[in-house]
Amino acid sequence: METPTEVHALVRRTHKERVLRALRERGALSRGEIAKIVGLSRTTVSEITRDLLRRGAIVVVDTDAAVREGSGRPAERLALDPRSAQFMGVDFGHRRVRVAVADAAHEIVASGRQRYQEDAGWPERISAAFGLIDRLGDECGVHFHALQGIGIGVTGPYPRSSAPHAPEGAFGPGFAAARDDVDVSFAERFGASVIVDNNTRFAALAEAITGGGAVDDLLYVRLSDGVGGALVVGGRLVGGATGLAGELGHVTIEPGGPLCRCGKAGCLETVASVPAIMAACRVRGADVGSLDELRSAVERGDPAVEQVLRDAASALGRVVGMVAMAFNPAEVVIGGEIAHLAPVIVGQVTATVATELFPWAAAKPAIRCAQLSDDDGALGALAALFHSSPLFAGYPEPAASRISALPA
Amino acid sequence: METPTEVHALVRRTHKERVLRALRERGALSRGEIAKIVGLSRTTVSEITRDLLRRGAIVVVDTDAAVREGSGRPAERLALDPRSAQFMGVDFGHRRVRVAVADAAHEIVASGRQRYQEDAGWPERISAAFGLIDRLGDECGVHFHALQGIGIGVTGPYPRSSAPHAPEGAFGPGFAAARDDVDVSFAERFGASVIVDNNTRFAALAEAITGGGAVDDLLYVRLSDGVGGALVVGGRLVGGATGLAGELGHVTIEPGGPLCRCGKAGCLETVASVPAIMAACRVRGADVGSLDELRSAVERGDPAVEQVLRDAASALGRVVGMVAMAFNPAEVVIGGEIAHLAPVIVGQVTATVATELFPWAAAKPAIRCAQLSDDDGALGALAALFHSSPLFAGYPEPAASRISALPA
Repeated sequence: METPTEVHALVRRTHKERVLRALRERGALSRGEIAKIVGLSRTTVSEITRDLLRRGAIVVVDTDAAVREGSGRPAERLALDPRSAQFMGVDFGHRRVRVAVADAAHEIVASGRQRYQEDAGWPERISAAFGLIDRLGDECGVHFHALQGIGIGVTGPYPRSSAPHAPEGAFGPGFAAARDDVDVSFAERFGASVIVDNNTRFAALAEAITGGGAVDDLLYVRLSDGVGGALVVGGRLVGGATGLAGELGHVTIEPGGPLCRCGKAGCLETVASVPAIMAACRVRGADVGSLDELRSAVERGDPAVEQVLRDAASALGRVVGMVAMAFNPAEVVIGGEIAHLAPVIVGQVTATVATELFPWAAAKPAIRCAQLSDDDGALGALAALFHSSPLFAGYPEPAASRISALPA
Repeated sequence: METPTEVHALVRRTHKERVLRALRERGALSRGEIAKIVGLSRTTVSEITRDLLRRGAIVVVDTDAAVREGSGRPAERLALDPRSAQFMGVDFGHRRVRVAVADAAHEIVASGRQRYQEDAGWPERISAAFGLIDRLGDECGVHFHALQGIGIGVTGPYPRSSAPHAPEGAFGPGFAAARDDVDVSFAERFGASVIVDNNTRFAALAEAITGGGAVDDLLYVRLSDGVGGALVVGGRLVGGATGLAGELGHVTIEPGGPLCRCGKAGCLETVASVPAIMAACRVRGADVGSLDELRSAVERGDPAVEQVLRDAASALGRVVGMVAMAFNPAEVVIGGEIAHLAPVIVGQVTATVATELFPWAAAKPAIRCAQLSDDDGALGALAALFHSSPLFAGYPEPAASRISALPA
């Protein structure tokens, strides 16, 4: 890695971001106006806009002839092209793919989702995604031939090669399949660079940079079919030495407890996943077979269901407390629909974490439900894409670009 | 933070590092020779060497008149000045301060230690450090008026303000004292920038960059009067949102267990610190009152002592396993003299961690004793100093500068 080269690339990219920000905030501008606003030379602005025009990120909309005072040649006015997809976030869940598309200024210009069967193989999933992207292009009038980058979230640890001996099904049906082909398929189809990571990690990054104030240190846990987790440390996603970071669902919480699909016993996931919670409710005589039924039971104050939820959240709280002791996050975010429909979960996690951490306020993270739904993973992949250059690792992003891709 | 300015500072610093590396590796060189070796223009090299001469990092040793072929003015030959301290690492332990001094090329040019009483206040500790530094200057012929940076390791969480309500003594006698004055005292005395952090963190960073291959993700735990810990993630020390990251000694391992000095009960520290291990040995009838006596008991195979050590290491292994599940380190390093004298500790931690993590090889970190002694904290502070510019966060360091400050 040649540092001086990278540094020059960073300078260029920083300048380009400033030009794009000016165009996003002010609309159509001449090159002279851009130069004045961003404080760069006319020459530099011309180089940047030439590159942006070439890749289709901006277009010439008109000239300033109508408003121009004095003589001289009218100047072209440039604007972002909202029909030119520049970034794409893709999230492959167990049962659907979601796609979000952003322009050069990081504004979402199209998004949608497409279902597939849970047992669908990767060729079928990828084909569903491509069909969705074609449809979005038609419906929103967006073209994809100028894409700069594609972020793709997948289930299970990433990179896949890090866990070659994971038992079949340990991380969902897609895990053991030829998932590595995903990046190649997208790169070939769109001629853009592709980053792939675990979709829980992307969700964590999206939570860290969304909302009121961005936080640099965040622990994210998602309760769904399994229990996933991800860490943002110093503003960056943590992948770990072999891509396995964040697997909080497989922390042993009950030594000698029920066998987990990972091959261990007594993992947090055997207590706090949605299926485990449902099963425990039924053992206690509460007839809940779906999240809707669980919601009703919570709303009518079913004491058995409440106790099961408290026990699960208490186990989760112990794990969160231990991890928080290790890396001292500012925020803990609990994702998954169940956390929204059963407020007792966040409440009990908060109470348990308080007993696990130092007994003073500065040691306690804020604990909250996820702001983005599970279906917003594509936004996380987009957010990761905006952060993806190693050149930006550790640099504070311009505030505007940090949040513009995410809903208020 | 103005990114373009930082970028230019980074370019300058990168160039300077390359000039210094050339001088370290090749000895005295003319400006023309430097320019050829590092691939920079004569003008740039002249600017850099002017700055290095001004701050006393290099000196003019002679001219190339004797070896010069052809005509023209003889060129000055420049060399590093090993008498000019450029970086200083300071480690304030409970009972001694250690200082290590490096030249501009990151070579250690002086080091030493000075004891003080455990109950010594900060003025006394600082005064002991200044006395030691004066002595090192005299003995090694080193001067300190060109210092670029000082790294200072202290006991307890840092920054201190993050735990304003910690009970007195929770992190050792120095913690609640006016430790914030340390940086001011050193900055005033030497006119250099100062970074201060927890010395366990500095030790972790030193372990991560020393030895055969540098690792980016490392978990460090030290067993001593307490149990300290620190994380290196993606090559960077983790401080946490309020400076409390890494306090693994205070993870609850035994709910309702013995009261810990932090105010909680059943912390890992109540089981795995050296005093806790000694006390447990005595409860089991083994008469050990010092590490030397413990070593003898281990060497003669005292079964009670062995069991106590296994129990403590098993508790440590559970905590290490949980933290490793969260952030997937490449290496776990166990520091503290006791880990060296009782190999059963690393052995038992390894066995326990294996049961806590996924049952496949890629999930398992390498687990080893610390390579650097507890007394080498000053080297960790130096290493942190070499990494300290936020500009270098996330950038791979030149291999030579990563390891040159550390013993082979």
